[in-house]
Amino acid sequence: MLTRIDHVGIACRDLDRSIAFYEATFGLAVVSREENAGQGVKEAMLHVADAPAGTSYVQLLEPLGPETPVGRFLARRGEGIHHVGYGVTDITAALESIGATGVRLIDARPRHGSMGASIAFLHPADVGGVLTELVQFPGQD
Amino acid sequence: MLTRIDHVGIACRDLDRSIAFYEATFGLAVVSREENAGQGVKEAMLHVADAPAGTSYVQLLEPLGPETPVGRFLARRGEGIHHVGYGVTDITAALESIGATGVRLIDARPRHGSMGASIAFLHPADVGGVLTELVQFPGQD
Repeated sequence: MLTRIDHVGIACRDLDRSIAFYEATFGLAVVSREENAGQGVKEAMLHVADAPAGTSYVQLLEPLGPETPVGRFLARRGEGIHHVGYGVTDITAALESIGATGVRLIDARPRHGSMGASIAFLHPADVGGVLTELVQFPGQD
Repeated sequence: MLTRIDHVGIACRDLDRSIAFYEATFGLAVVSREENAGQGVKEAMLHVADAPAGTSYVQLLEPLGPETPVGRFLARRGEGIHHVGYGVTDITAALESIGATGVRLIDARPRHGSMGASIAFLHPADVGGVLTELVQFPGQD
């Protein structure tokens, strides 16, 4: 069902500063920057590696305000890993299969994510404290 | 420098229960189980995907006691994502390069990690709150 670790989502206070850090320290390069008002973040995707099943990224997330999911995460926990995103080839089938095991779906239907992907989040309380995202890119079906 | 997301390390209270959850929910399979007294954990590596640069895993970590790094993490934060591990092809060169940028190295020299890998951790306070691990497998050099 899972085809790759698509990305690790990292909450930060200053997107530009965090991008500069990952560029300078690890040699990563930004491949996409977006603002997603629905999720309350501005974000950057940094390329880590390509694989047959798709690319893996570091996703840096700066909240658009304190009363957003990432803003509340920062207030509660500080900067750090916010979630993990796994690639899937059929997100609708994956949600159906996972939901059938009793895991609550934050997104019962896929919605639009970074770089044109279809995404859906699973409830962390049902995934051992891990905010877990499924990601399907167009053409990966 | 980074060749892949090698693994996401997840702290859990009951390794067997967490393994059963990842098997049943996501269809992942355990490829290795180890106890690492030096790190104070028993752990399992679950296969997510293969790529030219190496395999990606979910790593489940149960502490051997409360006074271990993962035990203290669980007491402070509860179950959840503990760290991220990135693949590198030359861990000694990577540590030298990263250390030269001012990031403090928890492990100035590589030590033994899961499945025969050489690993080293970077200080999370210098990596935006992210406990970051470098991983080099034998033959990847």
